[in-house]
Amino acid sequence: MARPFERLTRLKDAIERLLAILEPVKEVERIPIRDSLGRVLAADIIANVDIPPFDRAAMDGYAVHAEDTFGANPENPKIFSVIGVSEIGRPFKEFVPHGRAVYVHTGSKIPEGANAVVPIEYADVHGDVILVRRAFAPGDNISKKGEDVSKGRKVLEKGRVITPPDIALMKAIGLRQVEVFRRPKLAVVACGNELVDDIERLEPGKILEYSREIVIGYAKKLGAEVIDLGIVPDSEADILDVAKLVRGQVDVLVTVGGTSIGEHDLIPRLISRHGELAFHGVAIEPGKPTCAGKIGSLPILGLPGLPVATFIATITILQRALERLSGVSGEYSPRVMKAILNRRIWSKPGIRTFARVKLFRRNNTIFAEPIAITGSGILSSIVLGDGIVIVPEDLEGIEEGTTVNVILLRDFNIFEHSL
Amino acid sequence: MARPFERLTRLKDAIERLLAILEPVKEVERIPIRDSLGRVLAADIIANVDIPPFDRAAMDGYAVHAEDTFGANPENPKIFSVIGVSEIGRPFKEFVPHGRAVYVHTGSKIPEGANAVVPIEYADVHGDVILVRRAFAPGDNISKKGEDVSKGRKVLEKGRVITPPDIALMKAIGLRQVEVFRRPKLAVVACGNELVDDIERLEPGKILEYSREIVIGYAKKLGAEVIDLGIVPDSEADILDVAKLVRGQVDVLVTVGGTSIGEHDLIPRLISRHGELAFHGVAIEPGKPTCAGKIGSLPILGLPGLPVATFIATITILQRALERLSGVSGEYSPRVMKAILNRRIWSKPGIRTFARVKLFRRNNTIFAEPIAITGSGILSSIVLGDGIVIVPEDLEGIEEGTTVNVILLRDFNIFEHSL
Repeated sequence: MARPFERLTRLKDAIERLLAILEPVKEVERIPIRDSLGRVLAADIIANVDIPPFDRAAMDGYAVHAEDTFGANPENPKIFSVIGVSEIGRPFKEFVPHGRAVYVHTGSKIPEGANAVVPIEYADVHGDVILVRRAFAPGDNISKKGEDVSKGRKVLEKGRVITPPDIALMKAIGLRQVEVFRRPKLAVVACGNELVDDIERLEPGKILEYSREIVIGYAKKLGAEVIDLGIVPDSEADILDVAKLVRGQVDVLVTVGGTSIGEHDLIPRLISRHGELAFHGVAIEPGKPTCAGKIGSLPILGLPGLPVATFIATITILQRALERLSGVSGEYSPRVMKAILNRRIWSKPGIRTFARVKLFRRNNTIFAEPIAITGSGILSSIVLGDGIVIVPEDLEGIEEGTTVNVILLRDFNIFEHSL
Repeated sequence: MARPFERLTRLKDAIERLLAILEPVKEVERIPIRDSLGRVLAADIIANVDIPPFDRAAMDGYAVHAEDTFGANPENPKIFSVIGVSEIGRPFKEFVPHGRAVYVHTGSKIPEGANAVVPIEYADVHGDVILVRRAFAPGDNISKKGEDVSKGRKVLEKGRVITPPDIALMKAIGLRQVEVFRRPKLAVVACGNELVDDIERLEPGKILEYSREIVIGYAKKLGAEVIDLGIVPDSEADILDVAKLVRGQVDVLVTVGGTSIGEHDLIPRLISRHGELAFHGVAIEPGKPTCAGKIGSLPILGLPGLPVATFIATITILQRALERLSGVSGEYSPRVMKAILNRRIWSKPGIRTFARVKLFRRNNTIFAEPIAITGSGILSSIVLGDGIVIVPEDLEGIEEGTTVNVILLRDFNIFEHSL
């Protein structure tokens, strides 16, 4: 009978070994900028225009020669006569002589000669004349040509995940299409003789498979394209057939289940026999029976089938694999909240432990309560939990009363915190 | 000539007044659970099954009568003869007598009579006999029937944004379809005589419109359906036509531009004249010239047109509107990172100021550097900025050296922080 993993691989090392066998996507798609939200830039973007294209007013006010305001103070205002208006779209086209002012809207072109804008709140208006009671320096309240974006400058970097302001910027510099990497493709299959996919086919001795929904959901959320292969039996031949089927079609094959340390040690054995195993058994709890390797050119990630283990292995290991495949620079940053532990979390030294917690507020303090039932099969511990507290490998648990970082499990928080 | 807003509405009050005129979506769609990722649950979900459906092993090991292990210790092991195996999908169907053990896999059914599992690492195997050298309590290493989800219990709450584990849970309790609220619908229109939508039509005096891409992008990211109406001139009649066109078709009309305090004070004037203005001028910087109100049954949110102002008003005000419309409980939680300010941020008291910062690391400390050029028109200050630091209304800036919360502007972080 198999013994527990004799040597567990530290999470950090497991991730490194997995990343080493993955080939980042190289294929590029050219798509309209508006469809590019969340996609990964395949090349640097260099501006070929200046923004603003000319000096323009940064405030509503009066364009003047700054020098003409020198020496102005509340007792000794400087006087300007207003000779016109520079509208957005209808600029004032003449030269502004000394002692004259042109009314400008925020964003409108600064007429030639003027080099500062006196904001309207600093101008006393008397018919066609204004009084200015303080001095302004050259450049005051003016957006200089190229101040926002200057021609020839790199404005967006390859590997960036495109945000709404990025789309605005691409449009601003005249781009209509952009080159992005194609989405990573991932095939998912659940392994188990006892598994069925349809509640109507649930008969005694059968179990409904649902853990792979966690993999599929997060993979989609992280921008991957998912091919769902359903369920295959615990058979080396069947799983090998699946691997052959998807080889060349996907960037990684993810199996769910079939990795436990009992007699169903299927996936790591299969990888060892037909390819190269990168690791089997990771020093995380839950999620230990995770393995990875390569058969031919196909990277395979074997995730455990008990749902909490599937979940932890997905957000720690699969997520990093998808980042690598997608060509993104940087790492997905979780949403985090500080809270005080209201009970001790226990953990084994040497194992990175992911404890599920519920958050509650008392006397304006936020507390994290470890969820009592924490078996790897307890799906509700993730669904009902608000977050996760990580106990690092070098600790034996975390004491009650400690302030911890809680990684939030949802994008929407139960506690308001307005921007 | 118009003066600056005489009375600015505090952000909190502006949001409250806006939320008061919005009607949360009530229409419900019934969709396959796998398509429900990120959608908002329209009704509580009650489990109509137990998970697990029977007592099952939480570890690989031996199912025994716990009482038979009492008194066991390293010197005096208890002896059990192994009479069978309970496989997942092929349970052991007989009663387990005292002194007997049945091998169980994690997840397999506990045979009748047994009430504890001795994990394999605590069993010395000698052919068909095992020696157990410590005592186990009834229930040890067993997942009790209904322990994860018990029949009749509310497992997911109305208003929840559906996550991947939620989909797994819905599948586990036998759901195939789920009722979600339809997505909020929002129409976006940019206002300005000088604006063009196409760089090919850019001629002297014209300006390329791009700020509304920020609104469209965030609205999509937050799950809304967006109808883009392009650009309309700065004309009350034209905008009124747009409002009539979309009334009854969308949950909110968002205008971009046309709200400045100069002579183009168009949107608030229009709302006041034909409906009810909820506020005009918010005590935030940038983003001040934001307004909202209702014409007939159509809520209108008027956002400023300078891109940084559009951006801040979008993430502070429009986001809250979309949350309200979508029926989600809770608030979108931003990604936050602590950093030390390496220069003072200046702000006006009474105004909530959103300063853009760049992050950098020095000697393992993360610093936030306020971006020098911070006009509302400087799109690159958001695109190149890594985050935002909020200066509350009651402060006049934040001192250099202060540890601040930086709201990250991207989902992917420049600094690694592995889970």
